[in-house]
Amino acid sequence: MNVAVLGGGAMGHVLAQMIEEKDGFALAGMVDPLKGESLADLDDVDVVIDFSNPANLPMVMAYCEENKCPAVIATTGFSDEETAKIQALGREVPVVFSANYSLGINVMKRVVAEITPILEDTFDIEIIEKHHNKKLDAPSGTAKMLLSAANPDGAYDHVYGREGNRKRGKEIGIHAVRAGSIAGEHTVLYAGDDELLEIKHTAGSKKIFAAGALKAAAFAAEAKSGYYTMEDVLFG
Amino acid sequence: MNVAVLGGGAMGHVLAQMIEEKDGFALAGMVDPLKGESLADLDDVDVVIDFSNPANLPMVMAYCEENKCPAVIATTGFSDEETAKIQALGREVPVVFSANYSLGINVMKRVVAEITPILEDTFDIEIIEKHHNKKLDAPSGTAKMLLSAANPDGAYDHVYGREGNRKRGKEIGIHAVRAGSIAGEHTVLYAGDDELLEIKHTAGSKKIFAAGALKAAAFAAEAKSGYYTMEDVLFG
Amino acid sequence: MNVAVLGGGAMGHVLAQMIEEKDGFALAGMVDPLKGESLADLDDVDVVIDFSNPANLPMVMAYCEENKCPAVIATTGFSDEETAKIQALGREVPVVFSANYSLGINVMKRVVAEITPILEDTFDIEIIEKHHNKKLDAPSGTAKMLLSAANPDGAYDHVYGREGNRKRGKEIGIHAVRAGSIAGEHTVLYAGDDELLEIKHTAGSKKIFAAGALKAAAFAAEAKSGYYTMEDVLFG
Amino acid sequence: MNVAVLGGGAMGHVLAQMIEEKDGFALAGMVDPLKGESLADLDDVDVVIDFSNPANLPMVMAYCEENKCPAVIATTGFSDEETAKIQALGREVPVVFSANYSLGINVMKRVVAEITPILEDTFDIEIIEKHHNKKLDAPSGTAKMLLSAANPDGAYDHVYGREGNRKRGKEIGIHAVRAGSIAGEHTVLYAGDDELLEIKHTAGSKKIFAAGALKAAAFAAEAKSGYYTMEDVLFG
Repeated sequence: MNVAVLGGGAMGHVLAQMIEEKDGFALAGMVDPLKGESLADLDDVDVVIDFSNPANLPMVMAYCEENKCPAVIATTGFSDEETAKIQALGREVPVVFSANYSLGINVMKRVVAEITPILEDTFDIEIIEKHHNKKLDAPSGTAKMLLSAANPDGAYDHVYGREGNRKRGKEIGIHAVRAGSIAGEHTVLYAGDDELLEIKHTAGSKKIFAAGALKAAAFAAEAKSGYYTMEDVLFG
Repeated sequence: MNVAVLGGGAMGHVLAQMIEEKDGFALAGMVDPLKGESLADLDDVDVVIDFSNPANLPMVMAYCEENKCPAVIATTGFSDEETAKIQALGREVPVVFSANYSLGINVMKRVVAEITPILEDTFDIEIIEKHHNKKLDAPSGTAKMLLSAANPDGAYDHVYGREGNRKRGKEIGIHAVRAGSIAGEHTVLYAGDDELLEIKHTAGSKKIFAAGALKAAAFAAEAKSGYYTMEDVLFG
Repeated sequence: MNVAVLGGGAMGHVLAQMIEEKDGFALAGMVDPLKGESLADLDDVDVVIDFSNPANLPMVMAYCEENKCPAVIATTGFSDEETAKIQALGREVPVVFSANYSLGINVMKRVVAEITPILEDTFDIEIIEKHHNKKLDAPSGTAKMLLSAANPDGAYDHVYGREGNRKRGKEIGIHAVRAGSIAGEHTVLYAGDDELLEIKHTAGSKKIFAAGALKAAAFAAEAKSGYYTMEDVLFG
Repeated sequence: MNVAVLGGGAMGHVLAQMIEEKDGFALAGMVDPLKGESLADLDDVDVVIDFSNPANLPMVMAYCEENKCPAVIATTGFSDEETAKIQALGREVPVVFSANYSLGINVMKRVVAEITPILEDTFDIEIIEKHHNKKLDAPSGTAKMLLSAANPDGAYDHVYGREGNRKRGKEIGIHAVRAGSIAGEHTVLYAGDDELLEIKHTAGSKKIFAAGALKAAAFAAEAKSGYYTMEDVLFG
């Protein structure tokens, strides 16, 4: 399968190297829009993986529509309008779109969505995430994704830390640890009466996002036109 | 609901106290066979919870059959023949039978059974359990239960520790830590390429088994005759 | 050794039971000021352990001065003036005073004080503590004690949670998780470039504070007059 | 400071890159004996760091003695005879030698040596280490180092896993988890009566060993002739 990589940043390079090393995959080309390169320069592409930024969405859409080429969108930060366009692209070609492509995080999200309704009557929920000291935003996008899975109807308030005297309400606490060079750790803690259940994911490197995107690419190449998430890729 | 407790040990006392404190429940009586007491001495019982030992199974069966009384069997160590009798009792009255009544452990077992098929191609599995220094058997019964959930077809070998030089095979390592007064901790670790997913349960006291047995009692009191596990109680 | 216990709450009862079960210790009496009882009613006391509240400090001082009786003060919430009085009592009799009597926490505090100067140039520090959902104050007194050990000169700012966009400064984050019935968990995390060092203490019950207070009592009974902390008791 | 790196493997490359990026350090040269290269080809070397294998010890000794050049030996697997030679080299020039150059692990080892005598009367000790599924030996060399720190006089037996029925004796359990691509995790667990104290180190990459070796090089360049360990480098 010939894969085109859009994006010349760290993620793009990790992905390109993984494609070259993996049986059954070949690199159709790496396209860095910051150097003026374009997808249009490439022939014989089976699927495009976009690890660039929202500004390149028109290029992805034009190329994929014209060439009936499946797309995996691994860029973040889209507006609602842009997200709607990505969904619309799914009417023309197979499109996979997710906020986090790691296999482990997607399994974790599904587990949280499943077990929260069973536990929430008698267990409290808290989320702890840890990232490196350069990360500016808190909580992480992945923590927000897990929070949505635990609180789909907004029944719980969100608390981003605690100081002083206050009774715990109907709330989920989200704690953002920032320290050292931590690549990413997310824990969802369920605490009941004398028992704890913890689901914890630890990311070691960016490689896990590239591996997940490649799995999505293999899925998209075989799928009918449609808009898919990693949940579809992993759980069918 | 009037609950009879069979068994005069630590678990029986924890359960009896919980019944007396909980709205909607009343203690029909606590029966200690070691003191010559019998279920037959009790009237007006809605459900029997057995936290005694296998020797009292005939008493439970006779009482429940005669009085059409639902039963929750929380005793362990039954032979295959005795287990078959418990299942047969389910043809007469509602019977719940499980190796571990904690809500958290049952949720964990279900999660492990669900996610192992998704992860096992690219993740290795190991189990770590911790218990107090008085516990003689290793690994714990609960660790074995989790192992069955992760390895239902026996596709993996079991390894109970590692020393010396050896290549890891198609195996699941089970590690039994024994130290201090630890009530019980079980972790199932999934380790992939640069990512970890851990499911961890921590028990604080025996109360969690009493609470689960009580939930099972409420279920049994409303159920049709049949043989049920905690999975039926919790997930329907 | 005859030990008087001042305080009729949960801690007092746990301590009284431990004294009765432990070789070499006898319960001189349990004194509940809320029932109008007084230390003055007791004869033949080798050491007083105070697990009551600051209002009873005058009673402790009067009794110990008059009877030249050693004291272990395990009550919290004293004003600066009261603390000064406790220190002054040390001129008359041996006095032990500490915010937390658990052996593990005191060892942890000492470790944090020792290793922070070695690590802080290249490691960031964060503190995570977890307690039950009834606890009103945050962070815990023990977390504050550990924070002082890590930040004796106030060189770091304190941050009690993170939300939104902000660069991490010269700061220590303290995260207070409140959930379920957690007895108490404290972690000091040191995160450097590609390595983490974590020191974590988990309390299982109030018993650990009683056990430490009893160790302090044995120390006080043998000590010269003076003002001591658990650090003196444990490390000499 | 001009640093010569001996060894053309993964560690050598990580170290060489770090030297080139770090203020105050310059790469005098990278010497790969497998390509027939020799330290003798280099001029103007302030310190040699050896990340190669024991076969190159004669080259290191000859070069450092002749040029009065300090040495940091980060190779493992030396015989007792070779270790004696390294110690002897310390009579001529400053030599640092350690089984693990990570700052965190060395701090951990020191903490374990310090607190074990305080805790061992009432706490049990167990060690858990986790490494990738390619690692052949168990337990890890670092786990053995921590074990020596916890058990300097051999007072405890070692147990490398538990299965079946057996009473816990005067022993330390060491548990070797092998799974995925885990770079290295070591936990020393102290478990007492209702409390746990855990010291845990997590390595994210080989960079931490290079960083420690570089710190040792800076120390060696300023030290008098002598034989030193990382403990001397870090704690003076």
